[in-house]
Formats: sequence, structure tokens, C-alpha cells
Amino acid sequence: MKKHLLIAALAFVGVSVHATAANDEPISPIKPAANINLGMVELGKKLFFDPRLSKSGFISCNSCHNLSMGGSDNLPTSIGDRWQQGPINSPTVLNSSLNVAQFWDGRAADLKEQAGGPIENPMEMGFSHTLTVSLLETIPAYVREFRQVFGKDKIDIEQVTAAIAEFEKTLVTPNSRFDQWLLGKKDALTKEELDGYTLFKESGCTACHYGEAVGGTSFQKMGLIEPYKTTNPAEGRSAVTGKDADRFNFKVPTLRNVELTYPYFHDGAANTLAEANDIMGRLQLGKKFTPEENAKIVAFLKTLTGDQPLILLPILPPSSDSTPRPNPFGK
Amino acid sequence: MKKHLLIAALAFVGVSVHATAANDEPISPIKPAANINLGMVELGKKLFFDPRLSKSGFISCNSCHNLSMGGSDNLPTSIGDRWQQGPINSPTVLNSSLNVAQFWDGRAADLKEQAGGPIENPMEMGFSHTLTVSLLETIPAYVREFRQVFGKDKIDIEQVTAAIAEFEKTLVTPNSRFDQWLLGKKDALTKEELDGYTLFKESGCTACHYGEAVGGTSFQKMGLIEPYKTTNPAEGRSAVTGKDADRFNFKVPTLRNVELTYPYFHDGAANTLAEANDIMGRLQLGKKFTPEENAKIVAFLKTLTGDQPLILLPILPPSSDSTPRPNPFGK
Repeated sequence: MKKHLLIAALAFVGVSVHATAANDEPISPIKPAANINLGMVELGKKLFFDPRLSKSGFISCNSCHNLSMGGSDNLPTSIGDRWQQGPINSPTVLNSSLNVAQFWDGRAADLKEQAGGPIENPMEMGFSHTLTVSLLETIPAYVREFRQVFGKDKIDIEQVTAAIAEFEKTLVTPNSRFDQWLLGKKDALTKEELDGYTLFKESGCTACHYGEAVGGTSFQKMGLIEPYKTTNPAEGRSAVTGKDADRFNFKVPTLRNVELTYPYFHDGAANTLAEANDIMGRLQLGKKFTPEENAKIVAFLKTLTGDQPLILLPILPPSSDSTPRPNPFGK
Repeated sequence: MKKHLLIAALAFVGVSVHATAANDEPISPIKPAANINLGMVELGKKLFFDPRLSKSGFISCNSCHNLSMGGSDNLPTSIGDRWQQGPINSPTVLNSSLNVAQFWDGRAADLKEQAGGPIENPMEMGFSHTLTVSLLETIPAYVREFRQVFGKDKIDIEQVTAAIAEFEKTLVTPNSRFDQWLLGKKDALTKEELDGYTLFKESGCTACHYGEAVGGTSFQKMGLIEPYKTTNPAEGRSAVTGKDADRFNFKVPTLRNVELTYPYFHDGAANTLAEANDIMGRLQLGKKFTPEENAKIVAFLKTLTGDQPLILLPILPPSSDSTPRPNPFGK
């Protein structure tokens, strides 16, 4: 009865009870997507799944950010046009709207800017913005849908990337067992998982992995205490800022759905959560977790898997006779 | 009133009015899938979308039989492991349960036998049946689901291909405008489309393209009246039978959803329906369609696009620590 009164009082003064309950914790629950333009989402979903946005006609956004597999490709580094080996591990698209910036080095300010990158990257989709737009203009059903959604005479790349970004904004994963616990379901976690969470906090992991996405909000040096050894040439944030001090600074990845987004790190070198956690402990915190401690933290991390977006596979509008045919094997 | 009485009378003697109405036509309406094991379908859908059934971890059944694109890849010939150029055009998986046999040369008797092919074809998924089974055995959620569906202690490749085939049986496309017309909705087609259908029948197209799938029921020589010129080395049915008389005999493709399954023929050399129809007329029937006749037949063919299967994208069970990691770039 007392608790009910308190809740009523808090609600009265405009304080969210759930937020209050979770406020003591460094991690906050994922909120369902809001302020969503559904017309843009439906169009963006089609574009996200459309391999005609690549030179080969074979690679779509979903190829490397596969929504059946945690929004990633589960490969160390991605496969691009003509099977080129990508330079870096494909980050999950899930909850990516919560990132401070996009790509491992944060070179895109937001999802819209990010969406334009892979299309014209010769290592990825190998196409161009101009070719994308002129191709879409030959597909009558796309022309109508862009007109309906954006109310303009002509398709342009800004509309394409805005629609993809709007779709990606819907790809949040609320309702993980950990969030249920944060929101008051105290039996949502086992003792081992809770112990793992306590250890995660006490060891200092939450210095970087905090907030709604349990990461994604800052750039940090990979190999803070001990250097990280890799053959991957990526330099991280310094490639964007030009500052030597930013060398090997990478965006802290989200740990949401981390059970699904193996392998780990920007080079995809860690195959398992236990391996990744062990390396993070040693290199970032100067801590050697015992196997028992490691298992507890891994158990906690697996509680961060939320409801995966329910995606009704889009049916893509067919090309017309005048649509350029893709070129998968020619130069 | 008279018509109603006739319908009632026919119904009384056990004759289906719809079937009677359609019986005069060489094409019959697609029937929704029946006798379906839903547990196998759900499991088979996961396997159909799972790129872990390929050596690279990148290619799934859906890569070349893309259910967003008419169950095909819309490429002349498919892209396989390490971007190898496939030998032949990827036939649509839609309505493939209606085919007399599978593959262009009919070398697989049914969908179950077909499903095993691409997995171990070094030009396609490049994996093996043994590796597929041992990989699936390391994924706890798959182990449980196979056990639930098949009631056996161990996964085997027969279960894998049976589940994929069961899913594929559901991929039929009823309710096209043409089928609505066949079933009595007389205003479902325009005059041009009906004229096209009449021309299609009178020209002899229905000698091969008949039945529920408007094809798929026989093997016929490509280039009957005039030889078909192609650089594609596929020999067709003779590769299976060893008989020289079967050289260049291919399975007649279904024309259902043909608007979506460009480019056409076993070599994917015809980019548009108009081009394919022109070539068919000349080479198979010794007939040169005028542009107007061609346009009418194309208009008819586009009425064969049915309801595309509604696919809720499956969420794949994650690999465990002991699951072998894919090898996309190594030997």
C-alpha cells in the first residue's frame, strides 16, 4: 500500500517510476522506438533489403547487417563486392540509433550519413549514389513510393539514406531479461547473472559500457593497459580527427545482443564472449578474471539479448525493362 | 436466378463450379499449400535463411532464391562461394513443389533431393553434408528443434533437407489476377491481357506452358525450330540420361511470377519478357510476333504474379563457443 502511494506520488510530480528504479544503475532500459515515420520505414526496409543498391546486384545492407543474426554477419570482417575482404568487423545495426556516431571510427555523424557509405565504397557495395538514384528512377513502384513518402518530383540520395535511417531507427531491442530486471521484475535474473552484473560494475566495465546501449557513447583506446596485438591496419578515430592522440581509439561497441554478434572487436579476432571478456579485462582494466568470474560476466552479458525486431520480409518492386542490369562478373 | 440455380445444381451433384469453369483452360489455378507439417516448416525456414550452411558463412538458400525477389536472384547466373560464376540461371523456388523434377536438367527427383545439392556444390555453398550436420549439432537451439520436430537423437542430412523441402512446399503463389479470372472473377483481366492469353494459347505456347505452374511439367528442346545460340556450356537433360537425344533438353520453366524472375532462360541471356517472348516465338514455334502481339502476351504474363509468400524473417539460433567459425577468405 505504501509502495503504491509512493508510485502515485511520483507519477503525480511527473517522475517516471521506472526511470527512478533504474536510475541507480549505470545501464538503463532500451526504450521502444518513438517519433517514427511509418511510410519512410516501409520504404527504408525495402531499400535495406534491396541488392540492386550494389554493383553486383547481390549485396544489400542486410548482407552484412543480417537481421536474422543480430544485425551482423558473424564474420571477422565482411565480404564485399567481388568477395573483397572488408577492412573491419561489421558492427550490429541493432540499437545503432543510440550510438554517438556511426562506424568504428565515428566518421559518420548519424545513421543517415552512414547509410550512404557502403553503397559507394568500392570494397563494399561498389556502386555510386548517382547510379543508385538513376536505377531507382527506372522502377515505377519505387518512384511512386518515394513520391508518396517525400512528396517530391525526383528521387535523390538524401531521400534514400533518410528512408534507410528511419527503418534502422526501428531496430531497437527492448525487453531483454536484464531490462525486465531493471524495470522491476526481480526474478528475471539468476544469482549467477546478478553476480556477473555486480562483477561487471565493480571491475570497471561500466566506465565505458553504460547507458541504454551499454556502450556506443564514447571513443576509447583499444589496449589501454596492455597493447592490443592485431594484424588489422585500422587506426581508429585518428583517421577522422588526424590527431595522433586518437590513434587506436575506437567507438565502444554496444553490448546489447552481444550473444548474437560474435566474433568480437574491430578486427573480429575474438570468437567467444569468454575470450573477449578475458582480453578486455587484461588490456583495458589490468584485471585477470578467474574462469569462474569470467563465466559469471558472460552469463550476465547473455541477459542483454532483447526482443529481436519482427521483420516481415519486404517484396521488392521488380525492375522495368529500362532498369540497368547488375554486373556481377564483369569489370 | 438461372445462374444461381445452375451453380446450386452443380454443387448438388458434387462438381466444383470453379474447377469446371477452369477445366476448359490449359492453365489451372494455384492451390494453397496443403498437408503441411508446421514444425518442419519453421525449422526449414531457419535453415533456408542460414548462411552457416555454406563454407563462407555468407551464402544461404535465400541468397540465390531470394524471397524478396520472386524466389530468384535476378542475375544471369548465380554468385557462388568465393564469387565463383555459377553455370546456370537460378530457377525460382516459388511453386517449385509443382515441378516434375528439380534443377534445369531435372537431376533431382524432388525438393528434398534438390536441397542437398547446393550445400555441397563447390561452386555454390561449398560446404559438405557432414560439416553441415556436425555444425548444427553444436548449436543447442537447433539440436532441440530438430529433436522436437523429428523425434530422433541425432541430426542427419535427411532431416535437414526434409525440413528445407517442407518450407519450400509452402512457397506457392495463389491468387494471381489470372487465377482470379480462372476462378470466375471475369473483370480481373483487361481486354489486352485476355487478348494476350488467347494469343498465347493459339500460338501454341500452352503446348509446354500449361497446368498449375504454367510449365515445370516436361523437358523440351531449347531451340526446336531454330537453334538457340549461347556461350553457356550447359547440355541439359542429356547430362542426366546420357542420351544424345536429350541434348539441350531443359525443364520448361514455370511462368508463374515471371514478371519477377528476370533475366530469362537457362543462361539468363534474355533481360526482358518482351525479348524472351520474341525468342520463344521464333525458336520454339517458328512464329514472329508483331510488337503489338508481343506486348499483349507480355501483359498476359504479368497477370500470373500471385500473392508472394509472407515471410516473417527467422531469428537464427546463435552459434555456441564450440561451433566451427566460417572460413570466408582462407583456402
